[in-house]
This record gives sequence, C-alpha cells and structure tokens, in this order.
Amino acid sequence: MLELISEHACFGGSQRFYRHQSQSTGLPMRFSVFLPAGAADGKCPALFYLAGLTCNEETFMTKGGAQRVAAREGMILVAPDTSPRGAGIAGESDAWDFGAGAGFYVDATQEPWRGNYRMYSYILELRALLVAELPLDAARIGIFGHSMGGHGALVLALRNPELFRSVSAFAPIAAPSRCPWGQKAFSGYLGADESTWRAYDASELMAQASAPFPNGILVDQGLADKFLGDQLYPEAFEAACRHAGQALELRRHAGYDHGYYFISTFMEDHMNFHSANLG
Amino acid sequence: MLELISEHACFGGSQRFYRHQSQSTGLPMRFSVFLPAGAADGKCPALFYLAGLTCNEETFMTKGGAQRVAAREGMILVAPDTSPRGAGIAGESDAWDFGAGAGFYVDATQEPWRGNYRMYSYILELRALLVAELPLDAARIGIFGHSMGGHGALVLALRNPELFRSVSAFAPIAAPSRCPWGQKAFSGYLGADESTWRAYDASELMAQASAPFPNGILVDQGLADKFLGDQLYPEAFEAACRHAGQALELRRHAGYDHGYYFISTFMEDHMNFHSANLG
Repeated sequence: MLELISEHACFGGSQRFYRHQSQSTGLPMRFSVFLPAGAADGKCPALFYLAGLTCNEETFMTKGGAQRVAAREGMILVAPDTSPRGAGIAGESDAWDFGAGAGFYVDATQEPWRGNYRMYSYILELRALLVAELPLDAARIGIFGHSMGGHGALVLALRNPELFRSVSAFAPIAAPSRCPWGQKAFSGYLGADESTWRAYDASELMAQASAPFPNGILVDQGLADKFLGDQLYPEAFEAACRHAGQALELRRHAGYDHGYYFISTFMEDHMNFHSANLG
Repeated sequence: MLELISEHACFGGSQRFYRHQSQSTGLPMRFSVFLPAGAADGKCPALFYLAGLTCNEETFMTKGGAQRVAAREGMILVAPDTSPRGAGIAGESDAWDFGAGAGFYVDATQEPWRGNYRMYSYILELRALLVAELPLDAARIGIFGHSMGGHGALVLALRNPELFRSVSAFAPIAAPSRCPWGQKAFSGYLGADESTWRAYDASELMAQASAPFPNGILVDQGLADKFLGDQLYPEAFEAACRHAGQALELRRHAGYDHGYYFISTFMEDHMNFHSANLG
C-alpha cells in the first residue's frame, strides 16, 4: 500500500516520504511521516499537520522545526500534500489559491473537480491507512495546521472529535464563508448554494457544537499578518467558541507575520499542547 | 549600504534579508541575518553560516532550526549566498557544482570567473561590513557551514583565526584538492597549478598550522552520507589536526545522510559549542 520514496535519519528517529494510491482522490498521493525512536517499540500518539496554500507534503517537515520536539515527546508527525496532483483538469494550476496546491480540505461536488478534489475524505482515508500500517495509537491522534491548513484542521476536528482528540492552528482561515479565499474555493468546489459551505466553515461548525474539546483549542495569530484583515477572521471563531462554551486560547502576537518564521517560533508550544492533551 | 528586502519577527528577534553592492564580486549580493532580541541593547556574538552547493542565503534560515537557539543564547546569525548571481558569464548556470550556487568560497584567478567569483574575499568583506553596520561584537565572531560551506568555514577560519574565533562544520568537503567537486572547482576557478589550491584546502592548511583553535573544532559527519566515500575526506582533516596538535571532535553518526534533517538534528550542539567558545 505504502511506497517509501525516501528516508532520512532525524533527531534519533526517521523522516520518511511516502506515496500511495488514494481511493478518495483516485490519484497517487504523497505524504511525509516523522517516526520518533520510540515508534520501533510500540504505538505512539500522532499529530497530523495540514499545510497552507501552495505548500506540499515537504513544507512542514523542512520549515516547521517540529521533529526535535516530537522526538522528545515520542510523537509521530504526519504531513499530507495540500491537493491532488496531476488530475489533468484544465486550469488546475492557473491560480495559486485554487486547484493544485489549494484543495481546501473539502470534498468537491462540482465538475470538473468532484472526481479528484476530495481532500476532506482523503485526510480521513490517510488517518485510517496510517493507523493500520504504522504504529499510530488510534486513540491518541491530534491535528493542527496553518492558514488553509488551519481551516482544514479545525473542520476535520470539529466534525470528527472522536478521531482527532486535540486541535490547534496557526493563523487559520477561521471563517472561510466570509473571506475571498474561502468564497473562491467554496464556489468552485461546492457551488453557489452557500448552505453547503457550512460543513466546511469552522466558525459555523463551532456555533452549532457543544464544546467538543474539553482541554481547549489553541490558536496563534500574528498581528503583522497581511492576511489578517481580509482572510482569516479569528474573531469570528472566537465568538463562535464563546457562544458554544468551547475554551479557546487565541494568542495574538505583535509583529509576527503569516510565514514559517512565525510558525516555527510557536511550534514547540503547539507540540506541548498536543502532547499534554494526548497523554 | 544595506538594503533591507524583508523582515520577519522570529523567536522574539528579527529575521532579515538584505541586499548590498559588493566590492569583492562587483555585483549586488544577498544575505540573511537573524538578530536576537538582545541585539537592540548592545553588541552580540555572531555566527556566520556558509551553505553548500545549490543553496542560497535563505536555506539555513528556513531549514536549519538555529534561530531558536540563537535567541536563547543571544547570538546573531549571518548567512551569505553561495556565489555571485547574474554575472552574465556564459555557462554560469549550466552545472549545479560549478558557477552559480557553487562559488566554493575561493577568489578565482582564471577567466572568465576572476572578475566576480571572489567569495573568499566576499565573506571577509561581509564580516567587516556587518561589524560596522549591525551590532556584531567583532571580538566574538565564529563561523560554520555545510559541505562546500563546511570547507569554506574551515578555510576562512584557518586563514583568519583572529577574525573567526570559533569554527565547526557539518559534513565538510575537508580535502577539496583530492575530491571530484574540489578538483573541478579549483581547476576552473584557480587553474591547473595545484600549488595554488593549498590556500583553499582545509587539510593542507591545518597540516601547516599550529593549533589555532585552543577550544577545539567540532565536525559532524553522517555515515549514510552518499558523498562520504568520494567527496568529503573527514579522515584527511582528522589526520591533519592530529599532525598539528589541533583538538578536533569529529563525530560520526550512523544512519545520517548529507541533508538538513541531519544538520538540524545536530544544530543545537554546534550553537552551544560556538556560544561557549565566544563567551
């Protein structure tokens, strides 16, 4: 099932890149895994990281600086790609915020995307596959992500709190139905009926939830993030959490922008948060 | 003199990218700097990192994971580019191991390279420039690097121990006169007279030195490095250190390869080594 593309020793563990044939997308998909040394001896808690627009399965592993902490905490890391690749759809690579590299973690219902652009189901497929094939402890899996991937992490967790027991995000697209990135993606993948968008909008989902994460949710947001004003809407998610009684630690950081210099700065805090939640 | 291209908050400090006009290369050059929070209050020790073939001024800052430790230790980090860019020399970008991205930290004496490919002098120029323009403590500057940049760091330090007081390397090209990468680069940049190569060969320089680094030299080498057999020759440098009475900690790591998953694993050790040496 899993084709190992490459493997690198890293912090006493193993950094791996895999390819596999996905049922959800109908295409070969790539992802990366970091296995701490302890994974040789038994099941470990695991943390899925969903990356943002234009990124791929390598971004987090090269830029995030998470392996050091994962090695210390004995956690497995998993980073999927951000879309199908090579679907052969006309215009697939014309925009950086739609199509290839921009799957938005939804299951498209519209042509020509609906056959392959099914990243919501893909993340669940990958989770099940890795629980079967690698030493992930199914009862101790969390999820986090950045920007589009922060949106994806919140949505996946809110809809499947039994599968993802801990969730956090860096500068997530927290209310995609009301921002240009989300409106473009949802219109294209899901169509004009905005009622179908709610299932992929973290703020909408949270407003209807009943505090599914008793240990809280951690979100970091830079205040020098050039996308904060138009695209991210952390205040909408904050209001939804308040309405739902969901504990949220939303940290606003003066001076920090939207990139991996911001993410890597607060990576250890997120890793420690998930490690504590997953026990 | 220094044109600030971009700036990112990072671990409480500032990650910056600069451009400036170099006298050594006759071209605009790019470099990156990490300033810890303490740099706002006074001079700090500094560490230059020289990157390897195909890399640029961004590689170390995105993949190395050094800023976290630099912030903690109050150290400035500097990462130059690996060659001039845009010299307009025919064939400059035809090979990945010669020309653009492969300056080898030498001053070329051969046409058509001698006018621009002067990376040895450039590193010294950059050091002097940054001591003048940024809060680097001139008495507490060290240097390290990877592969071609490990070679460069060892050569720069051995020829200028008063300018670079501490030196270490990851998988350096430790005896370039006897490996294919070095022979190609030295032939092209320095010409056929191999006596001119000695000034840029760390093992040759060390054999003639008198233990210039009383706190020792740290070198990490992965044993799964595919370049170890043909290109790196750490044993030649080890023998030269022994001959010269220079303390060397050469650590051989089973399973580790030549890439940044190896480098980032041992980055903190190198940072601690330099921090201790630079006081």
